[in-house]
Order: sequence, then structure tokens, then C-alpha cells
Amino acid sequence: MNTRVLLARRPQGPITTDLFVFDQAPVPEPGPGDVLVRNIYLSCDPYLVGRIQSVFPLGEPVAVRAVGVIARSENPAWLEGTIVWGFLAWEEYTLVPGGRGLTAVDPTLGPISSAISVLGMPGLTAYVGTLELGQPKPGETFYVSSAAGAVGSLAGQLARLAGARVVGSAGSPAKCAHVIDKLGFDACFDHRAVSSVGEGLDQHCPEGVDVYFDNVGGETLDAVLARLNPHARIAVCGQISTYVGQGAGLPNIMAMLRQRATMTGFSIYDHTHKLPEFLPWMSRLLREGNVVYVEDVREGIDSVPDAFVGMLAGDNIGKRLVRVSDDPTTS
Amino acid sequence: MNTRVLLARRPQGPITTDLFVFDQAPVPEPGPGDVLVRNIYLSCDPYLVGRIQSVFPLGEPVAVRAVGVIARSENPAWLEGTIVWGFLAWEEYTLVPGGRGLTAVDPTLGPISSAISVLGMPGLTAYVGTLELGQPKPGETFYVSSAAGAVGSLAGQLARLAGARVVGSAGSPAKCAHVIDKLGFDACFDHRAVSSVGEGLDQHCPEGVDVYFDNVGGETLDAVLARLNPHARIAVCGQISTYVGQGAGLPNIMAMLRQRATMTGFSIYDHTHKLPEFLPWMSRLLREGNVVYVEDVREGIDSVPDAFVGMLAGDNIGKRLVRVSDDPTTS
Repeated sequence: MNTRVLLARRPQGPITTDLFVFDQAPVPEPGPGDVLVRNIYLSCDPYLVGRIQSVFPLGEPVAVRAVGVIARSENPAWLEGTIVWGFLAWEEYTLVPGGRGLTAVDPTLGPISSAISVLGMPGLTAYVGTLELGQPKPGETFYVSSAAGAVGSLAGQLARLAGARVVGSAGSPAKCAHVIDKLGFDACFDHRAVSSVGEGLDQHCPEGVDVYFDNVGGETLDAVLARLNPHARIAVCGQISTYVGQGAGLPNIMAMLRQRATMTGFSIYDHTHKLPEFLPWMSRLLREGNVVYVEDVREGIDSVPDAFVGMLAGDNIGKRLVRVSDDPTTS
Repeated sequence: MNTRVLLARRPQGPITTDLFVFDQAPVPEPGPGDVLVRNIYLSCDPYLVGRIQSVFPLGEPVAVRAVGVIARSENPAWLEGTIVWGFLAWEEYTLVPGGRGLTAVDPTLGPISSAISVLGMPGLTAYVGTLELGQPKPGETFYVSSAAGAVGSLAGQLARLAGARVVGSAGSPAKCAHVIDKLGFDACFDHRAVSSVGEGLDQHCPEGVDVYFDNVGGETLDAVLARLNPHARIAVCGQISTYVGQGAGLPNIMAMLRQRATMTGFSIYDHTHKLPEFLPWMSRLLREGNVVYVEDVREGIDSVPDAFVGMLAGDNIGKRLVRVSDDPTTS
């Protein structure tokens, strides 16, 4: 049987585990040209909130990026046993009509799970937002929110490699210790331990902010606006704090003009053609130890709703994944 | 005697004429190296509000861009009778120590008043914001607020020359008629005659906004955010509506991420080195009739406070200037 996590209803407010129900269905039968993937690693991403609110159909498994292995193939282009990633779903097996949208994973580049973490969209997101949009320079101050998260943890390390002084914020003392000790940030403050983000910035970015990699929006973005340096750059990657509830006001938006700053929102789907240049470069940075990347892996399909809702509340350090079957490259 | 307009006190709220007092002082005597300018055209610019609020010294004439003629020179580099522009002041005569900061005006490029309008900073502002930052393309929709103003009136025409569909907003039916009939915009709506800017945009930009040249900020900016097209560009030139009072919230700031948009604040002082390339190009556009530029000239030093406060309230069509002495090129 195929255990699936279905979206049962739309949220009225915050995302809670009771929006999802478990379901058991027969493992699908691939028809001519189809591929059946046994899922191994399922992703839990903040952007899913918006889709859960208004896009994903009710009564269906939640569509997410996943890494799996081809369990059965009726398609000559896809051999059984091949490791792939694609938009699959929160379920144990996903039928892929015509094998469309799958990408083979090169296991020599890194652990196969990284195809949906540091060697996938989260990694590419950090790369585009930090180096293409943020363009940190030696001596500049780079600040990233959600510094212990899937994207922020890498963004800060790339900025540090570019020579910037790197400051993060995260939601617990353990995360801050991780960010400083393991990831090599110059500073990281616990946004729950300061009276305001502005206080944390005043303490840790005394010379202002030149580049802000924005993972949260809202009051944090506004606090950064008030501390921008001339010609600052803001890369708006995600605004997790405004996914739920009202968009926040930005009383300090005038700083964009005063400091001649640039704010750019971006979606990684405009940049996926850069993966071929990105993957070998990032793989080498990891292999040579210049970048550290941590995954926070929960076990079992039953843990998916908890893993997702917990990630939204910030209980993860690094990229949150759920392993739902054996990884043949590690067993 | 030299009639001067002094800043008497700081505003507690809106800018009113009683912040200023008139004063008569002896015409200054240039010392060695100094230049005395008889001012002809004084500028009235929105950006002065911020300086009046917190920068300009009390009891002194308000420093503004002006065009004048050298009345007396004790500096061999500056001949009497030369037309110049520079940061002078709201007064009839300005003493320029060492002749520093003056620029000779080439009267063959256009009327000498244009050195502080279309062939000066307002013109360069429209050029940088529209063509360098906005980059309108054929078929795109370009929207500019304050479309009848010193900068907006030119920004829209440059966007039209670049092939965009150009929509403006302004504060009276007469201004809208001017913008459409004289300046050749495709549409212009009276922001005082619609229930909200959003309503005006829905009517006149039914396909959304690709480029916004922001002269006002606040609710107008937020209404544009809600109607951005993918990869839209916002050039933040001025936010006259937020110069006075609190910065406005931007409930729709999330659109920056959703539409992968870019917002750039800019100050023309970062771009003044582009004047040599800009001036002959703009002069030719004017001469050949491809761009129309209107100045709204009041007469006499006594009218300066009214001219300035009225401009802030939107009583001008085109660039607001005050002529305070004879223009030798037109008499």
C-alpha cells in the first residue's frame, strides 16, 4: 500500500497538523511510458504555505520536491534503480506520467538528499540571492535572517567567502551557536532574546547593513531599512512572517530613497537554467570544506505533518527533510 | 539692497508660508576670488522639504538651485555677464566664495532657465529613473505619478519614446488634459477624482504595471505593488506624500517577491557625471519637438514662499520656478 498525506482543508489561520490527513491507497500501476518512483526524501519548504492556502487541490497528496528511486518503469528512457528528483508528493510512491519532470541525481556530487537541499533549489536560491543580487564585497556587512535555515545558512557562508562581515539571526541560542561555531558567521543573535530586531542589529551591525538577504519580511525588513547603508542591496527571497496573516507595513520604506538602495524579489524558477554551472561549483565547496551544510532529517511518512509545521515554527536547524524509505546509497 | 527669503523656524507639520520671512540686507561685496551672482531663476523643489525640516540653518536664506548672471567678479576665471547655475539661494544676489560650485550655462542648448529644469537635475532625474532604472520596453505599461510635474512630465515622454504605453496621474482635470494633449501620454487620471489610486490604475492600466516611476510613495506605491507585472521595475525618485508626516505602510510589499520585482531608490547626486552625455541629447529632443517641456514661472522674489508652498500642494503645471530679475537672453 501507498501511505499518502492529503490536504484535507484550507487553513483559516496558521498552518496546523490537522489540515492534513493520512490515507492508504494501492501503489499505482504505471501504464505505457509511465514511471513509478519510490520516494526516499520528501521536502518541507516554507513556500508551500501559499500553495496550501490557495493552490493545492483538496483531497490530494501535497506536491513537493522529493528524491526517490525508480521502482518500476514502463519508459525506456528511465531505468529502474535510477535515483531521481522532481516534483513528487508527500506519499511513499508517486506515479510520474510519461516520466516527465524527473531529473537524474548524480550521486558523486554529494549525498542524494542534497539534490533537494544544498545541491538543489535551496542552494541555488542562496547563490542567486547572495552573489547575483546581494553582491557582498570585502568589508561590507551582510545580514541574513533565518540564518540556521535551509537557505540562510548557505547564504551567509557564500557572503563570507566573498569577504563580507556576516551577521545572522535565528530563533534559539542553539541555532545561534550552530551558526557561529559550525557555519563560521561573524555574529548571530537570537531574535527571541532581543526586545526588537533593531536592537540586535544595532548591537551586531554597528556600521549598518550593506546587503540584506531577506527570508522573513515584515518587521525584520523594516528594521533593516532603518539601518541601510548607501547603495545597499536587499534580496527578497521569502517572507515567511507574512505568508500567514496580513502583509506588514514598512514605515521605513523611505530609506530606499534616502540610501539609494535596491530591493529585488526573486523566484528561483527564473534561475533554474543556472543549475549546470552551480552544481559542480557548490559540490567542490562542500567537498573541500569551504561550505558546511546541514540537513535536519525526520524519519517516516507519519512524521510529515509534524515535520512541516515544526519547521514553520522554527524547530529545524538546516534543511528540513523527511526520509520515508531506505536510501540505497547509505545503507 | 538684497531681498532674501529666510527660514524663520522649523515646521511642526505641513510646510506653510509663515515658516519664511523676508529680509533686506546690503548687497554683499565680493572679496578677492569671490563672485557675486544676480539671481534670475530660483528653483522650488519638493526635496527642499526634508532640508527645511532638519538641515537648513534658521535665519539664513534657503539654499536652492538657481540660474543667474555674474554681476561682479573678483575671480579671473569668471567674467561678468556670464550666465551660470549653481546652489545659490532664495535671494536676489548671492555671494559665491571663490566662485566655487558654479557652472556656466550654454544658452545655445535651450532657454537659460532650463539649466535648472529640463537641462538640469530634474531632467537628468527623469532620464536616469526612466531609462536606466525603469528600462521600459515596447508594449510594456509605464506609470508615473505627478505626471504634470517637473520630473514626471519628462519621464513619461521618455518612456513613450522607448515604446511603452504611458499612463500618468495628476491632481486636476486641467493637468490631466495637459498631460494627454500636450505631452502625448496615452492616459492620465485625476487622482482626486477617483475613489482610490487603485481604481484609476485598474481603469487605465488593465494589463498591470511593468514600470513605475515613483514620485509620491505611500498609498500610490502600495496600489502599484498590488498591480505589478512579473519582473516589474520601480524607480523611487521622490516620495512627496511621505516627506510630511509618517512613512506609510506597504501592505502589498509581498508583491515584490511574488512578481520578482525590483525597486531602486536613487539620488541624482550619484549621477551628475552623466550631464555631459545627457545635455546635447535632451537639447536635440526638445529642439526637434520630440519632447515638450513646460515651466511654470512665477514673478518676483516676494512670490517665493507662495510659489513653493503652492507647488507642494500641486498648483503647478510643469517645473515651478520664480523669476526674480531680468533674463538678458529674453529681454
